[in-house]
Amino acid sequence: MNDEEINYWLDMFDKISQSVEEAIINARQDPDVTNITKMGADGTPTHKIDEYAEKAALDMIESSGKSLIVISEEIGTLKVGDDMAEYVIVMDPLDGTSNAMKNIPCYGISLALAPISGDDLSNVTLEDIEVGYVKNFSISDVYRAVKGRGATKNDEKMNISSITRASDSTLCTYIYRAKPGVLDKLCSSVRRMRLIGAIAVELCYVADGTYDVFLDIGQVRVLDIAASQLIIKENGGLITDRNKMPLKSRLDLIEKTSIIATTNKELQEDVLQLID
Amino acid sequence: MNDEEINYWLDMFDKISQSVEEAIINARQDPDVTNITKMGADGTPTHKIDEYAEKAALDMIESSGKSLIVISEEIGTLKVGDDMAEYVIVMDPLDGTSNAMKNIPCYGISLALAPISGDDLSNVTLEDIEVGYVKNFSISDVYRAVKGRGATKNDEKMNISSITRASDSTLCTYIYRAKPGVLDKLCSSVRRMRLIGAIAVELCYVADGTYDVFLDIGQVRVLDIAASQLIIKENGGLITDRNKMPLKSRLDLIEKTSIIATTNKELQEDVLQLID
Repeated sequence: MNDEEINYWLDMFDKISQSVEEAIINARQDPDVTNITKMGADGTPTHKIDEYAEKAALDMIESSGKSLIVISEEIGTLKVGDDMAEYVIVMDPLDGTSNAMKNIPCYGISLALAPISGDDLSNVTLEDIEVGYVKNFSISDVYRAVKGRGATKNDEKMNISSITRASDSTLCTYIYRAKPGVLDKLCSSVRRMRLIGAIAVELCYVADGTYDVFLDIGQVRVLDIAASQLIIKENGGLITDRNKMPLKSRLDLIEKTSIIATTNKELQEDVLQLID
Repeated sequence: MNDEEINYWLDMFDKISQSVEEAIINARQDPDVTNITKMGADGTPTHKIDEYAEKAALDMIESSGKSLIVISEEIGTLKVGDDMAEYVIVMDPLDGTSNAMKNIPCYGISLALAPISGDDLSNVTLEDIEVGYVKNFSISDVYRAVKGRGATKNDEKMNISSITRASDSTLCTYIYRAKPGVLDKLCSSVRRMRLIGAIAVELCYVADGTYDVFLDIGQVRVLDIAASQLIIKENGGLITDRNKMPLKSRLDLIEKTSIIATTNKELQEDVLQLID
């Protein structure tokens, strides 16, 4: 992607984000906003607030006039425009739905873009993401990354955690279905545990040094991590699956992977030893 | 306590809270604010930001001209004023220190007041707390309770969760040193886990229905829960130790207890079955 294309999409992601944020503020006026309306394309319950968010995002994307493919939580995979798609957008319009409904101040939007050719998604993976964008609506932090050009938080360079030992670390983990004993071992080994419930935002917390580790040894969806994984990597961090292999999942609603995100190899090794 | 006394202290708690909040905002300008300066009276590390917060609170309390006893994290137990103490204030000037330093939007102040007579704390317990006050600085939510007169959030009545089954619940737990297997069982049984790292604020999340359960089967300090336990009870919720006994810990820096906070007995039973 050239400078013009990159700037176009960074600008578009700002517009989508702003539109979704306004939709969520308006949605709060609706007394039914926390109702479950149906099952989403991804197999999880869709709340009315998710529908508001996704509609706002799609309206903005459609108004661009571009031809592209959108992969999103509720609608699944959608072709936009009449021409061959040049890009795929992988998005979670509302990361941390439950927090947004309960007003726990950690929820936002995740938007990722990869170039494609000829409507063909079959060989496109997480490694092809070139633009990543996450906004934590509740405190207005914006994380951006462009492949090969680094990452920023609120347009500034981010610090990176230098912690190398699990025993000094703040670890965020989503392991609802861990092997027996794994959680006990993690909990008794790390300095602090955190679990706020907004994966895309909390992965950015690894990028900016708020957390030292994010671990999901279960099954995290590609659309939850598509943007954040680029933000972490472009800030010099490390994100792999639990076998230390690069994340190469196809861009698809049902693709899932394990992840461990840290800022250095020593910490990655130290945490993985605890769960093996 | 009569109306005049209650109003005096609610007003004083607003002033202390405001003063501490300003001190924390100023503290952020200090590049050493995250440094550990010493071990606090409670045996945990004191960060410079904790010192700023506690100093602001104590200055405001001393300026009241009242004679009272203060129990706080860093200074331990302190007599203020020359006359016999009529009250004890149990406070955590900065609940969620790590979050405050990392800008995770969940941290605040916890202030609790009990009448005493003749400087004597020996028979004063959590049950004697008559005024409880918690402010989540990051989103400016203020929780207040007065014994026998109910509790409010931002001066309004709070809803209460009607969830009665662990499998439907959002559970917050601090169990770094749980019995083997307990965490696995909890994680695989509840709807959602949360752990944000500010006990006083997160206990208020049970009062206002953001969480359904708060569980600490380890050792929580009296000063972390002194205000919130009254807020929960005055809002019709339930908070006991893990044996379902009323919280009767003495007001002391080193006193610790297990706790389970819910909004109803059915949910309390359902969660306790999981950990027994």
